[in-house]
Amino acid sequence: MARPAYRWPKVPEMTIHRLSVYTRCLRELEEDGVTTISSQELAERFNLNSAQVRKDLTYFGEFGVRGIGYYVTRLRGELQKILGLDREWPVALVGFGNLGAALFHHKGFSRQGFKIVVIFDEDPAKTGREVEGTPILGMQNVGRELRARGIQIGVVAVPAEGAQAVADQLVAGGVKAILNFAPTRLRVRRDVRLQSVDLSIEFETLSFYLTRLGR
Amino acid sequence: MARPAYRWPKVPEMTIHRLSVYTRCLRELEEDGVTTISSQELAERFNLNSAQVRKDLTYFGEFGVRGIGYYVTRLRGELQKILGLDREWPVALVGFGNLGAALFHHKGFSRQGFKIVVIFDEDPAKTGREVEGTPILGMQNVGRELRARGIQIGVVAVPAEGAQAVADQLVAGGVKAILNFAPTRLRVRRDVRLQSVDLSIEFETLSFYLTRLGR
Repeated sequence: MARPAYRWPKVPEMTIHRLSVYTRCLRELEEDGVTTISSQELAERFNLNSAQVRKDLTYFGEFGVRGIGYYVTRLRGELQKILGLDREWPVALVGFGNLGAALFHHKGFSRQGFKIVVIFDEDPAKTGREVEGTPILGMQNVGRELRARGIQIGVVAVPAEGAQAVADQLVAGGVKAILNFAPTRLRVRRDVRLQSVDLSIEFETLSFYLTRLGR
Repeated sequence: MARPAYRWPKVPEMTIHRLSVYTRCLRELEEDGVTTISSQELAERFNLNSAQVRKDLTYFGEFGVRGIGYYVTRLRGELQKILGLDREWPVALVGFGNLGAALFHHKGFSRQGFKIVVIFDEDPAKTGREVEGTPILGMQNVGRELRARGIQIGVVAVPAEGAQAVADQLVAGGVKAILNFAPTRLRVRRDVRLQSVDLSIEFETLSFYLTRLGR
């Protein structure tokens, strides 16, 4: 789970996160043929908090219809637009080791409009070829390649030692948002959005509950 | 990022998540030689919400000292204990593809006490050997192997199609908590803690901010 940054004071980080969760819930409802749902029902079905759902949505407008609740498809469309999921985002991936390869082959990203269009790796044995049509390039011309493709999102999947240098190259190349998987603290300019994914946090939630179970 | 489950009504899911974040902040403070800190300073330094910090901690006791704030090392120790990080958890990993290998080699897990002690994979080409001293076994005797090792935590890193069957095998083998990386919805008994990691959610937070930047 990502470490929150709380840089934009107006909309809480957790609200954005929950919007993503809501879109997934709404997609499930659509798949099940549900056309309208109240915040109460939504909360019950997905173990959410109905007051929280309503509060989160008020940041962006009035979506509920009195006596009906939410139109599932319409609300999902609105949330997708708010989250910037109504377009395709070209993404650069740096690091094509096990993690980089796993991220590249992850089906979920492209389904949501995030398309890895270029891969960078410092290992010459990996570069100069394509994987499923996507070029793997060396680290020499990162900036030029990013700008040529109009890339705003970069993914850092290199070991901790090299991560800051990679982030600097991405930012110098015009990237405005970085998703960091390296287990280290990165520093970027304040106008660049940095999201660090810390997979150990997921384990910690599990151990919290296991510890309580045992008591 | 994990999809919240909200099954234990008493402590909100997000509070647990934030406890993990706080332990990381406290570790940084320790590294920087800070011995005491107020909730206000903590909030400012890490872009948190000080009222939230105080509220989250009250679920577990009184940690602040009037006029001083929190003793950094002591608070971190308490949080580690609450999160069940004061012991080692043996973990079973199922699936040794790119993602499984990336997770296995992830330094952060063992640092936090989560040790992958056995790997399962259905591919005979991968089984019957060890990787860094950890055996890779076939899927024939999952239950027996789990019980023999007293494993309560399982990680699912197989493709979506096989994930439910794997989860079922883990639960049958006595696993009480599952961390799922397969991009699919799993069903488990209510007494088993399921945490699904949805990496696309991280991207969605980025695109939300990029979309707003562009406006």
